Amino acid sequence: MTAADAFATVRPRLTAGQVRALVADLAGVLGAGRVQTGEDVRRQHGTDESFHAPAPPDVVVAPRSTEEAVAIVNVCRRHRAPIIPFGAGTSLEGHIAALQGGVSVDMREMNRILRVSLDDLDVTVEAGVTRRRLDERLRPEGVFFPVDPGADATIGGMVSTGASGTMTVRYGAMRENVLSLLVVTPRGELLRTRSRARKSSAGYDLTRLLIGAEGTLGLVCEVTLRLQATPEAMSAAVAAFPTLRDAVECCIEVAQHAIPVARMELADERQIAAINAYADQDHQVAPTLFFEFHGTEAEVAAQAAETGRIAEGHGAAGFRWTTDEAQRRALWRARHDAYHAVRATHPGRRVLTTDACVPISRLAEVVVETRRDLDEHGLAGAIVGHVGDGNFHVSLLLDVDDGDEVARGMAFHDRLVRRAIEAGGTCTGEHGVGYGKAPYLALEHGEAGVAWMRAIKRALDPDDLFNPGKIIDG
Amino acid sequence: MTAADAFATVRPRLTAGQVRALVADLAGVLGAGRVQTGEDVRRQHGTDESFHAPAPPDVVVAPRSTEEAVAIVNVCRRHRAPIIPFGAGTSLEGHIAALQGGVSVDMREMNRILRVSLDDLDVTVEAGVTRRRLDERLRPEGVFFPVDPGADATIGGMVSTGASGTMTVRYGAMRENVLSLLVVTPRGELLRTRSRARKSSAGYDLTRLLIGAEGTLGLVCEVTLRLQATPEAMSAAVAAFPTLRDAVECCIEVAQHAIPVARMELADERQIAAINAYADQDHQVAPTLFFEFHGTEAEVAAQAAETGRIAEGHGAAGFRWTTDEAQRRALWRARHDAYHAVRATHPGRRVLTTDACVPISRLAEVVVETRRDLDEHGLAGAIVGHVGDGNFHVSLLLDVDDGDEVARGMAFHDRLVRRAIEAGGTCTGEHGVGYGKAPYLALEHGEAGVAWMRAIKRALDPDDLFNPGKIIDG
Repeated sequence: MTAADAFATVRPRLTAGQVRALVADLAGVLGAGRVQTGEDVRRQHGTDESFHAPAPPDVVVAPRSTEEAVAIVNVCRRHRAPIIPFGAGTSLEGHIAALQGGVSVDMREMNRILRVSLDDLDVTVEAGVTRRRLDERLRPEGVFFPVDPGADATIGGMVSTGASGTMTVRYGAMRENVLSLLVVTPRGELLRTRSRARKSSAGYDLTRLLIGAEGTLGLVCEVTLRLQATPEAMSAAVAAFPTLRDAVECCIEVAQHAIPVARMELADERQIAAINAYADQDHQVAPTLFFEFHGTEAEVAAQAAETGRIAEGHGAAGFRWTTDEAQRRALWRARHDAYHAVRATHPGRRVLTTDACVPISRLAEVVVETRRDLDEHGLAGAIVGHVGDGNFHVSLLLDVDDGDEVARGMAFHDRLVRRAIEAGGTCTGEHGVGYGKAPYLALEHGEAGVAWMRAIKRALDPDDLFNPGKIIDG
Repeated sequence: MTAADAFATVRPRLTAGQVRALVADLAGVLGAGRVQTGEDVRRQHGTDESFHAPAPPDVVVAPRSTEEAVAIVNVCRRHRAPIIPFGAGTSLEGHIAALQGGVSVDMREMNRILRVSLDDLDVTVEAGVTRRRLDERLRPEGVFFPVDPGADATIGGMVSTGASGTMTVRYGAMRENVLSLLVVTPRGELLRTRSRARKSSAGYDLTRLLIGAEGTLGLVCEVTLRLQATPEAMSAAVAAFPTLRDAVECCIEVAQHAIPVARMELADERQIAAINAYADQDHQVAPTLFFEFHGTEAEVAAQAAETGRIAEGHGAAGFRWTTDEAQRRALWRARHDAYHAVRATHPGRRVLTTDACVPISRLAEVVVETRRDLDEHGLAGAIVGHVGDGNFHVSLLLDVDDGDEVARGMAFHDRLVRRAIEAGGTCTGEHGVGYGKAPYLALEHGEAGVAWMRAIKRALDPDDLFNPGKIIDG
């Protein structure tokens, strides 16, 4: 990746001698057995699920408490070693690549659920708790955390990328569902960004500044999240449309009717064909919407029925809905299988996952142009979208041994990002910037916006120790 | 106010000669007739609706376009004159007081609604558009903007204080409902914080940083807001409870049952007695909850019925609900009259409005202690609360000619704030910091939090020109 090379030149890496001194001091804090420098573990910690080039750190450590996290940051400060927070490694824009070497701080051993309050509908967890583990703890209590990015990410990682997902259309993204954070600052101090109150106007919103900051401003140790009460009933529905525009216009009308859909997901024809082949299903090969409704028994029935009427008004055939749990899971399996189904169409190829988000009024034209662009350039890819938010992904299949195809894929990706920004949208709806999207920030925010981000970064991390080379050039 | 005196010492005011030179340059940009220096207009622009001491600016100007706003900021930069953005003057913590003199920038002539999109459910307005005017424009389109702080504030002012209000329990506060801002930065540049996409993970969240920044980081010129589709039906309900704790526990159970209440407001016995006297009504004098439900006809009926069952389980008597528009308005009139009703109990006294927010599990004990504190110190005041968010206000009536009563009122206010913070809450749920709450920021956020806010302020406004002396000491 040329981007990695460019960032990597910013700061000289620690010398072998400096790394030895750093390791010795980290061992002094954690014990020698807990400071890892083996090649495999370093490579794993520098590699995410993206198409971007990995970059291993010099050292990997895993704190077990906030106190250890503070101590690690202070050792790194003394050695001027970069600090790269690591969650589950599921990010998609090179967020965890140690572009300038340094210390990968693996948060997965900080995995305690510290408190749950059913009265306040909130929970405080350590940053390394994964989404699924939190869900297992919460479900029996009749509550759930509604941000589901698909991957079994850590909550700290979801904070740092500003994650969202299929239920954001109803319940919001991380920015709407995080109450408070406990972070180690670049000065090595502990900062609790906010109280547990549901809302506050007490000064600058440090919580939201850290959400989506990708570890560039501090190390997230604890997270307090809002919870939702589990609805009495859920129903699911699926509908196939004559054209992609019909499907998007159906979504617009559903929103205008104030139907509080819990999920509303789009899959294009290629995606449906891939699912049919992968999972031996027989969905009509057409642009398809998957819906989920939450409420009382009567509400979810009424919402599904009204959505069905709207869908039929936009030409949908075979609108089916159900409140039966097994049938609901079966309907949604198609959507859940999307990624693996596309991979299975071209075994051995790598997947480049794109992530653009536009105003929904522009979504149909942008997706149609994107489909045409793929076809014109002989590229294999399927499209899925969190259509209620105007957010869509292309799973682009590339043969990494075919330099020409990779180049065509990269050029396609560049056009896709520019098309989204030109349509009044963003270069990333939910995956974040990492170093993969960093070149597009000025295009999206203008020089004034990037200048503010750079000024904030320099003010809070003057030595550029925290995840250097990500988001902005540091 | 001692707080004002303390801040006022930070920077010498412009001399008379410097003010003349500033006025001449502003007149060069706007024309002489549009640069106001009269005593009355200056006093009005330095006075909000709070109990805090006003402080008039040296000059008042009112831009009619973003270009004029940029020009004004650049003149102020050259003269190193403080810039104090002014909306409707309805703020409650001294936000608009020109503590160090300078230029009050009255945004009310920037009052165009620039675009409405029913497909995207969003709207872009100039900062001086008021909430009611926006509502009048939107209602006929079948959409509405759900943040209602009570006062007819400007949208720019609501951005800057991080406003919320009665419908926040369902639809969120400004932080959840602003998509994008166009601001003049302290460098005199225009910055659009974000695209119109529903969500984005493209770098630091500059939008949320400016929401609640109270004009200390820039001058908000345009605001893009999310809208909601108007529900098919609304119902309202009212219920009186044996004790305040019963009322709060009812709210907790309503939330646990995932009933999507649109409003859920608490009034204490004093408040209800004041309303009965003021509006010749006959509400039972008891802790009372007012509810509103939004949805289909069937949904609002079901929600009201279920809430009624829960309320009766907590001892509520006389639970009444209605979908009739006239009756709904009548039920809510009591809540809307709250402020004036309390004032009428002690004509001639000034009202000090407090604003604390705590986790709802602590709300009952905090409100009960607050009531006891009022009574013990012989203070007149009534309590209302956005109880679903744990946010409550005391309308404290003070005779400003009685120095002892004012001192007791101030001491009460100080205890109230400390009680809220000790209960895991915040010194302000929705009114903001201004200079009235500035002394409490370190208590709430710790030194590390205030240090971050100060570092951000210095990085983005190194000359401390934007609303100096507010939030942090600048």
